[in-house]
Order: sequence, then C-alpha cells, then structure tokens
Amino acid sequence: MPPFRLVFLGFGNVGQALLQLCMDKRDELRQSFGIEWSTVGIVTARHGSAIDPRGIDPDRALAMAAAGESLAPLSRRQAPPDPLAFIHDCEADMLLENTPVNYADGQPAAAHLRAGLERGMHAITANKGPVVHAYRELTVRAAALGRRFLFEATVMGGTPIFSLWRTALLGARLLSFRGILNSTTNLILSRMEAGASFDDAVAQAQALGIAETDPRGDTQGWDAAIKVAALVTVLMDQPLKPSAVPRQGIENLQPEDIAAAARQGARWKLVCHAEQTPDGVSASVAPQMVDPADPLFSVMGTSAAVTFTTDVLGPLTIRESESPSISGPRSTAYGLLADMISAVRGT
Amino acid sequence: MPPFRLVFLGFGNVGQALLQLCMDKRDELRQSFGIEWSTVGIVTARHGSAIDPRGIDPDRALAMAAAGESLAPLSRRQAPPDPLAFIHDCEADMLLENTPVNYADGQPAAAHLRAGLERGMHAITANKGPVVHAYRELTVRAAALGRRFLFEATVMGGTPIFSLWRTALLGARLLSFRGILNSTTNLILSRMEAGASFDDAVAQAQALGIAETDPRGDTQGWDAAIKVAALVTVLMDQPLKPSAVPRQGIENLQPEDIAAAARQGARWKLVCHAEQTPDGVSASVAPQMVDPADPLFSVMGTSAAVTFTTDVLGPLTIRESESPSISGPRSTAYGLLADMISAVRGT
Repeated sequence: MPPFRLVFLGFGNVGQALLQLCMDKRDELRQSFGIEWSTVGIVTARHGSAIDPRGIDPDRALAMAAAGESLAPLSRRQAPPDPLAFIHDCEADMLLENTPVNYADGQPAAAHLRAGLERGMHAITANKGPVVHAYRELTVRAAALGRRFLFEATVMGGTPIFSLWRTALLGARLLSFRGILNSTTNLILSRMEAGASFDDAVAQAQALGIAETDPRGDTQGWDAAIKVAALVTVLMDQPLKPSAVPRQGIENLQPEDIAAAARQGARWKLVCHAEQTPDGVSASVAPQMVDPADPLFSVMGTSAAVTFTTDVLGPLTIRESESPSISGPRSTAYGLLADMISAVRGT
Repeated sequence: MPPFRLVFLGFGNVGQALLQLCMDKRDELRQSFGIEWSTVGIVTARHGSAIDPRGIDPDRALAMAAAGESLAPLSRRQAPPDPLAFIHDCEADMLLENTPVNYADGQPAAAHLRAGLERGMHAITANKGPVVHAYRELTVRAAALGRRFLFEATVMGGTPIFSLWRTALLGARLLSFRGILNSTTNLILSRMEAGASFDDAVAQAQALGIAETDPRGDTQGWDAAIKVAALVTVLMDQPLKPSAVPRQGIENLQPEDIAAAARQGARWKLVCHAEQTPDGVSASVAPQMVDPADPLFSVMGTSAAVTFTTDVLGPLTIRESESPSISGPRSTAYGLLADMISAVRGT
C-alpha cells in the first residue's frame, strides 16, 4: 500500500507533537494497522510553508520549527502562501488541521476542511470551531465523498469521547452529561485553593503555558461553552452554538468563596452541563460547589472529566488525569492520531 | 434482511434483562443498525428449554421465567436437554451465553461457545471463565469462521472496556491498570465504613441480591482476580490465569482498620492492579488505603472504576457509578447488546 500522504495545516505545539507521535509510532502503525505515512505539506501562519510530494524530512521540519525558523527551505517548489490555494495544489490523503479556534463562525478552518474533503482527503481537526459551526455540513459532505470528518482532539484532548460514542457505546441513548472540560480554569481554581489570588493563579497558569496571554476565553467560560456546544451538537445530534449556552465564568469567585467551600470539605469547579428535556436540550457552564462524593471532586489541576447518563448504564465517568510524563500537546496529538487510524479503518 | 436468530444459554437475571432490553430497543436497533431479531432458543439449567425456529414469544418467556415456571411449553418440538446437543440442533446467528462462572477451567461455557461458533453463530458471553481460559482459542476460531467472540459484559458489567480498547484507543499502548472491579466487596467496605461489622455488611449485601449465599468468591478476591486475569489476557495479550494473580481478600480487614483509615481521611478499597514490566506482567489483588486525591476514593457501594496508564494519554479513568434507575443485570445486559451490535457491524 502506498504511504498515506499527510498535510499539516497549522504547525504549533499540537501539530509538532502529532508529527513526533507519528514518528514514534511508525513501526506500530505499520505492524498493527498497515499504515505507512509521509508528510507532503506543512502550512504555517508565520513560519512559511513547505510542499514536497516525495516527502518532507520530519526530523528537519521539527528541528526548524523548534528553532523558530521558516520551513520554506524544505519546499520542493514554491508553496502557495494561502492555505486554500495550498490545499488545492496538494495531492494528499489526510488534512490535519490545527489552527486556532474561531468561536464566532469556525472560519477559515471549516472552509479549509471542506476543501480538503473535496480534494479527496480525510479531514481531521483539533479545532472546535468547525465542529460547532459546520458539523452536519462537513459530516454529510465527507460521507458523500467516501471520506471522514473527525475531531476527537477537540474535547478533553486525546481522551476518547467522540469515538467512545461512535464505536463503543452502541445503542445507548445519551440523556445528560456533566463535567470539567476546561483545564485552565480548573488549574486556576486548584491554585486558588492552595492560597493564590485569582490574578496570581492566572499568572501561574500563563507561566506554565496553559493559559493564554488574554485568559478570558477560559476564565469567562467561552472554551467550556464551545465544548458543551460540540458535545451537544455531535452526541445529542442537536445543533447548539456556543453563544446559546448560558455561561458564567470563574472571574467572580473570590478567595472567600474558595475558603468557605473548603470549610465545608467542598470545592468550586467550573461545571459544564447539558441534558435532554421534553423542550429540547438544556445546557450551561457555571461554577458549582462539589463535595467529596462527587466524581468531579478529585479532578485537580489540568485534569478533566465528564460523566454521561444514559438509558442503559449507571452514570459513566471518563476522566483524564494530568500526567508528569505525557504533555498536553502530546495527549491532544494522540486524539488526531486515533482519528487517522479510524479514518483508514473506516470505524 | 432476515431477523438475527438469538439463542439464550442461561436465562437468569442477566439473560432475562437482555431479552427485555432487546424488546425495549427493538425500534432503535432497526432504525440505527438495521437489526431485526427473533428468539429461537432458550436453555436453562432448572426451568427447561425451548426451541422454536419461528420465534419464541419474548413476553411469555419473561413472564414464565419470572414466575419460576418451566419454559418447555414454549417449545415447538422436544428440546434436547443437553446444551451442546441443543446448540447443534439449533439454527441461529447469535449465542448469548450467561451461565455461572467456573473459575477453574471455564467449562462447559467455553465448549458451548466453541460449538456455537462452529454452528455459524457469533459467540457472546457475560461469563469470565471462557475469557481467561480460552480467549485465544475462541478468538482465533471465530476469526477463521468469520464470526466473533465478544465478552464486554465480563468486567464492569456493560461499561465499555474491551470495546474501548478494541475500537477507540487505537494505537495506544497499555502500560498498567488499577481499579475497583468487584462491586460486592466495595459495597461491603462501604457498609463497614458506615459502622456495620463484616458479617452484617455481608448479610446486607446478600439481602440486596449482590453477594452470593457463599460470599467467599468475592470476599477472598477470586472474582477480582479473574477480572484482572481477563484484562491482562485480552488487553495486554498475555495469558494469565486467575490462580497466578497474587490475591488477598477483605476478610482480614477489621473495623479498627476501617476506623484508623477514616481518622486519616482515607478509606480501604480492594484494589486490582497489573503492569507491564521488563520481566512480564506483574498483577495483584489486595486491600489498599486510598486518599481523597485518588480517583478510586469516591467509588462507593456497587460503583466500579479502572484507571489505565498508556504511552499517549494521562491516566485514563473509566468509572460506572451505581444508579437508582439502572439495575446491575440491565447494565450487564447492555454489554451483551453492545457486543451483538458490534458483531453485526464487524467492529
């Protein structure tokens, strides 16, 4: 079988971690799944782009990216600087889209993924924007073209959530979910419990590379809301826009609130929730005090968890705990790798 | 498509819950998976057997089983009383095996499942015996015959564990697992924390129908050990017999131990563990004191949980909490139903 030709659209932490993971797993991919691969394109916003149908040297690409150098010298010919033109110009089997999220309309990522599908590629993304704004359109288009639109990495990094429902929880009906889906706010709350002020906790999260320079996407609950919208849109098959999720962030939580909870043996968490009701789906993001009997109580730092209620099982909790040895980008990259394998297997 | 013809081998709580679940989900199975079904055989140890190629009335079968009546009047012709002869005599597509576990050698269930495969049936079981004693043989035989040997319901009831690894955690390598897999002992320990003596806690678990008349299979750690052996055998692809798992039950835990843990804010759990080492798999079942930061701490009563460490994600915990609305047999039956769907889809 000829190698699967990969195009990386966006080559930041997650894109680089994915290429590294593909290299680490080269033998396993061949032996367990019959998958060979080759990188034929890398598109970046600020460090140039490279195109080479014969395969870009992944070690060199990673070294140049780590050094902050332009990737242009890796290109066999002039690469179109515009991503859409690049996709049209590129013969490939998988588009691996890892650009920053656009909460408002999911563009231009959704258009790029669609262009990849039209060019015969599987469209795989870690970007929540296209999921909440173009899930049905991209899924229907992919099916018509015999390709896949997959996005495991968008919620809880590489933790299997969408694939769990797609391939394992067969015949189960999702009634509700409740979870901690934003790890930045969870880390901030954990630091505040340890005595830090809100501002200090944010600064600590920024120093760790977890919080953004402008942390409000996390602290105001936007990231949590878009994840709720993604889960509802896909798992409950009910289109829901992030702006339609009643949303309260953690910015109004005071050290006194944290201390008062601690005196009761409880703690505050930013809780995501959605449930099927006779009038449609009810969803929310809001701080909530949880006690030790709650599966969310022990979810600290950058850990995350979600509990699903169904018509066939007791409440089912999926949790990924923070790890000293697996970085966030690597965990997210694994979600993309699992999608690549699913696309090849057709599962 | 003609209906899938089901044979129930064993028709106790789980078998009956499965037939009820198939009835509850009849429309969903047709609409979502194109599956129609019909019950052509039911074999019981003490309440007779029924065979009818045109389909046994499921409502009548459930009513008669609930009343403790013989199922023989449902039979269109004389049903062979011996299960092996019954299987050979029966034209069916799925064998649903739910007989009691035999820790020693997995028989006769393993032979029955093999006979079902040879007769062209998918072999689906909630019985751990055949998994630890005949996993490779039955899996290889099923593949050669274009059928499936599936057993999701054997560990943590219907919670997706085997299917998670088979279909969702693609390309991940399992390094270790640790969990609470025996709900009877977990319930007993929860009752002891609430002040009951060991004997009273056992009696309460028996009164709830959770513990057996002879509770030692649970309290001495045998059930936990066979589940460890099943997970290691399948997920680590290393055959391991339950007798080879170092095993310590909960019978030596004294009320003073429970109280001492509580004074430290901790509690005792019967912890299952296995990990890959350079010298092979190391496994154990033993009581362990856990603190509130541990994902196992809040697993109370008949809840269960397992944490997997891998090379690609932070520690991944799967937990099923006890539910006021979903019974244990129904949750276990769901595992069998999910396997039925997987067998039809080939996933």
